[in-house]
Amino acid sequence: MANIEELERIAKLIRYFSLVSTTEAGSGHPTSSLSAADLMTGLLFGGTFRFDADLPEHPNNDRLIFSKGHASPLLYSLWAAAGTVSEQELMSLRKFGSPLEGHPTTAFRYTEASTGSLGQGLPIGLGMALNGRYLDALPYRTYVLLGDSEMSEGSQWEAMELAAYYRLDNLVGIIDVNRLGQRGETMYGHDLAAYERKVSAFGWEALVIDGHAMPEILAAFEKALEVKERPVMVIAKTIKGKGVSFIEDRNGWHGKALKKEELARALEELGPVDTSLRGELRKPEDLKPGKPASGKAEEVSYDAAKPVATRHAYGNALVRIFPHFPDVVVLDAEVSNSTFAEVFKAAHPGRFFEMYIAEQNMAGAALGLSRRGKIPFVSTFAAFLTRAFDQIRMSQYSEADIKFCGSHAGVSIGEDGSSQMGLEDIAMFRTLLDSVVLYPCDAVATEKLVEEAARYKGIVYLRTTRRDTPIIYGNDEEFTIGGSKVVRGGEDDSVTVIGAGITLHEALAAYEELKEEGISIRVIDLYSIKPVDVKTLKKAAHATRAIVTVEDHFAEGGIGEAVRSAMADVDVPIHTLAVRKMPKSGKPDELLEYEEISRKAIVGKVKVILERS
Amino acid sequence: MANIEELERIAKLIRYFSLVSTTEAGSGHPTSSLSAADLMTGLLFGGTFRFDADLPEHPNNDRLIFSKGHASPLLYSLWAAAGTVSEQELMSLRKFGSPLEGHPTTAFRYTEASTGSLGQGLPIGLGMALNGRYLDALPYRTYVLLGDSEMSEGSQWEAMELAAYYRLDNLVGIIDVNRLGQRGETMYGHDLAAYERKVSAFGWEALVIDGHAMPEILAAFEKALEVKERPVMVIAKTIKGKGVSFIEDRNGWHGKALKKEELARALEELGPVDTSLRGELRKPEDLKPGKPASGKAEEVSYDAAKPVATRHAYGNALVRIFPHFPDVVVLDAEVSNSTFAEVFKAAHPGRFFEMYIAEQNMAGAALGLSRRGKIPFVSTFAAFLTRAFDQIRMSQYSEADIKFCGSHAGVSIGEDGSSQMGLEDIAMFRTLLDSVVLYPCDAVATEKLVEEAARYKGIVYLRTTRRDTPIIYGNDEEFTIGGSKVVRGGEDDSVTVIGAGITLHEALAAYEELKEEGISIRVIDLYSIKPVDVKTLKKAAHATRAIVTVEDHFAEGGIGEAVRSAMADVDVPIHTLAVRKMPKSGKPDELLEYEEISRKAIVGKVKVILERS
Repeated sequence: MANIEELERIAKLIRYFSLVSTTEAGSGHPTSSLSAADLMTGLLFGGTFRFDADLPEHPNNDRLIFSKGHASPLLYSLWAAAGTVSEQELMSLRKFGSPLEGHPTTAFRYTEASTGSLGQGLPIGLGMALNGRYLDALPYRTYVLLGDSEMSEGSQWEAMELAAYYRLDNLVGIIDVNRLGQRGETMYGHDLAAYERKVSAFGWEALVIDGHAMPEILAAFEKALEVKERPVMVIAKTIKGKGVSFIEDRNGWHGKALKKEELARALEELGPVDTSLRGELRKPEDLKPGKPASGKAEEVSYDAAKPVATRHAYGNALVRIFPHFPDVVVLDAEVSNSTFAEVFKAAHPGRFFEMYIAEQNMAGAALGLSRRGKIPFVSTFAAFLTRAFDQIRMSQYSEADIKFCGSHAGVSIGEDGSSQMGLEDIAMFRTLLDSVVLYPCDAVATEKLVEEAARYKGIVYLRTTRRDTPIIYGNDEEFTIGGSKVVRGGEDDSVTVIGAGITLHEALAAYEELKEEGISIRVIDLYSIKPVDVKTLKKAAHATRAIVTVEDHFAEGGIGEAVRSAMADVDVPIHTLAVRKMPKSGKPDELLEYEEISRKAIVGKVKVILERS
Repeated sequence: MANIEELERIAKLIRYFSLVSTTEAGSGHPTSSLSAADLMTGLLFGGTFRFDADLPEHPNNDRLIFSKGHASPLLYSLWAAAGTVSEQELMSLRKFGSPLEGHPTTAFRYTEASTGSLGQGLPIGLGMALNGRYLDALPYRTYVLLGDSEMSEGSQWEAMELAAYYRLDNLVGIIDVNRLGQRGETMYGHDLAAYERKVSAFGWEALVIDGHAMPEILAAFEKALEVKERPVMVIAKTIKGKGVSFIEDRNGWHGKALKKEELARALEELGPVDTSLRGELRKPEDLKPGKPASGKAEEVSYDAAKPVATRHAYGNALVRIFPHFPDVVVLDAEVSNSTFAEVFKAAHPGRFFEMYIAEQNMAGAALGLSRRGKIPFVSTFAAFLTRAFDQIRMSQYSEADIKFCGSHAGVSIGEDGSSQMGLEDIAMFRTLLDSVVLYPCDAVATEKLVEEAARYKGIVYLRTTRRDTPIIYGNDEEFTIGGSKVVRGGEDDSVTVIGAGITLHEALAAYEELKEEGISIRVIDLYSIKPVDVKTLKKAAHATRAIVTVEDHFAEGGIGEAVRSAMADVDVPIHTLAVRKMPKSGKPDELLEYEEISRKAIVGKVKVILERS
């Protein structure tokens, strides 16, 4: 392994790389990169970090996450110093088409997870550490480089608490305490004791060091290996812009690349740099996790006479499919008796993680688990998934394979009232690139769609209902992502009514009522809201006079707008029934009426349409 | 003031009220209410809390926020014990139309802010405390009742850190450490020392007490009055369900109302209750904040020759309108040099609060400030507002008057890449009931719309652009919520192109290019995305062959879908150009091209439409 002097030369090389690449790009964060250069050099090349650069996916590689994603020049420079990124690649920083983006994305082969929205790295690291300790049972460690500014993000403290609770001694955080945020000093400046107090109070081992003294850096990472049963936080006092006097510890240099003349001065200060110097990475032990046997899932088997809540079917489905998807892991945020993730927990306690009331960390941990090859199913109330929107948003940039389940959708949850009602969740999940949004109306559909979700590679959102609903599908019914079901209809349909989840049942009741009056409607179960079954919708649009969409969700961004977008080049009037009034407590059926998304509202709307056409 | 024995009798009455009201409702959270009954009785009726129940809006009232919103039966019972809620009202708990909802909403006159999504009360309280200490300069105190489970929410620790930083000795938290969460024990159970360590490490004064010993409770609230320069956290050991032996400290009783037979047993245990007993509230000192003089805002005055970024105009506008809106207060999350909130900070430092990198707390604090009569303007990158979606969602249930500004919208921010790009913010803000969503394309429009935003009572979202854009409007141009501008057009328009913000400029460039080829398009600046100017859009739909919407935003829930919903009963083809490919680093213009939302894409789309029609 490299000695102190060699490491210091590598650190200088890394500073050189960080400066020249950002100046070439004309933008970037050199000062934020320079403050952590010694820390990261000591970590990667000092002997503790173990990584096979030819096999970035080796399951026993240590992991390094840049929670302070804006220090991406440092990340790329580290890998250049490791010999895996050429100088030419380095100079493509921030250019269109280059995998070396402004903030790290998984387009770059050594990015563990895309970052750049602060405060997200520690939760992601927690997920990887959970995997190492409790799932793969491998000794790899997860390191997370943290900025001091971003330690004000609550998400980090969710991870701090959960990591201590789960005794993750394979998780090491490194806070780069460089005192300066984007527009001024952080709340604590260089008061390291303040960080130490908080870190210790949360149950972590705190190691306070000078972040530019290589012997201290190496000693800290060595020490971290010995700490058992609790995670380690290296709290490093650093200087922003360290290594270039005129940018050191000064306000106004955040996110500023040096101009050419400034770079020249900086390089002169740095002194001679051996650009051919490379650091050596220790390889990990060639250990692999056990490969679980993949079996068959049992058949779906519901008694058609007994209504079952789709949220309950979700829990059942997780257990049923698990033999066929042994990479599944289930996370829930203290509501597993409501989301029914508890059914899975009871059957496979070793594959379930209670994430407590900390949804941001749960979403971040799910990403970490996904990056390590697991298929996380993540549940809480649909409304509370909005707590993790930034994390969910970011996960779309990391090729995430995560399945979210939001229960207690809509006003139809009843008396608990608005705070508990998911009314914007469909809109939220629709915005994610290539996401799948599913909303089954009965237990059978739920079981089949949970299975489809597990099979799909990417982000899936499944919306479940609180109350028991009738089984309307036979156990053999098939459901596909992008499919739909015409559950009622024939030659003489006048109007198409599109519902999903709870409103599908309202539509069925409306169908019966209208049938009594000689009016025939086509009822479509739009269980796949994204992608939408354009073909079936177009057929209905041509066969009937109008489309009525009805959803237990706000009007914006939900089923109505999804259908409108899908019917872009079809000439059919589309009417949307949705939640438009202030939601409140009440009985579920009272609320469906009040919001005019009930059977009565559907019947009324159909009649109005027919009167006018 | 009531003596210990009287307070204990009031607490028993409150237990009685909590039990009977939830049994009547058939649902609710009696055990969560019972654990905090003594604490809240001691607070409200023990002499420290000062509130004029006839004037709930009195500016010098103490404030009590139920962060553990599910303990709403306790909240209502407290006010019944205060004589301001009748027993009949109490028994209307959770019924449709009753202001006593399942979780507290502002429909109930003593709810300070709607809660029920956990972890949000402390940030709201922080906002009220900031108001008391730094704005109104009044001595009222803000008390926040916290559950132990919800202390795992990171948002609480954001508030913990900010409250200590801002020396808010007028903020008192009370953690009801009853050991049990929804589905089992919390992470710390009854380990009060764990809470104390964390609370102290974050700079608060920790007072650990037996939460059922009235003398200790009173002493703690007395002691809290004496603590200076730091906030106080009362950490109270309690028993969930305290007062009814068969539900005390047992799992499985969360969120369960007692059945009638169980209630009878419980009331027998409670013993005789004097239901006519009432507690006395001390009134506050009749102090009011100074009434700031309201002046006139200066006129908008931009040099049409100099492009200005709308994000910069945002900062300018805040300063310009402030004389006319002296209740404005500005919050930013460590990016004020990017959002240009710093312009206001420089002019009115006493009305600006740096909220550091903690967006959830910032949104919660904004709600607290709004509830105390201020008009908060809250800014950060549009992408990072997704961090606070749950808080923003909840604020719509609190009659919030908050203006959010999200800068760095779209792929056109360039090299920083996807993590920094707001691409789902329009969709997010559109989902809020009665929200206004504005997207000005130049500095003049921005100034006028910031003013309209301040004037509007409710939630407004204003989206700003990173780069400098030309001034296209005269300083005298008027802009209205729900308005739009036809910036190009005439008799022979073939196609309507609708843009906003950055794409409006692309549309103008496309107009010129098409004009060269003899094609005339109508260009509409849809600066008000919600509400949409249906009239102008309909006129254009009838006058032209098709509508093309173009937005620097994902396709779902944005401008395209807003226009489609608005054009529901108009027969016009609508084509949507939006971000549909993985966003990445690159030059702004390269990215606009790549995402096919550039002038070239608009020209191409118009031509394709004309070829086909």
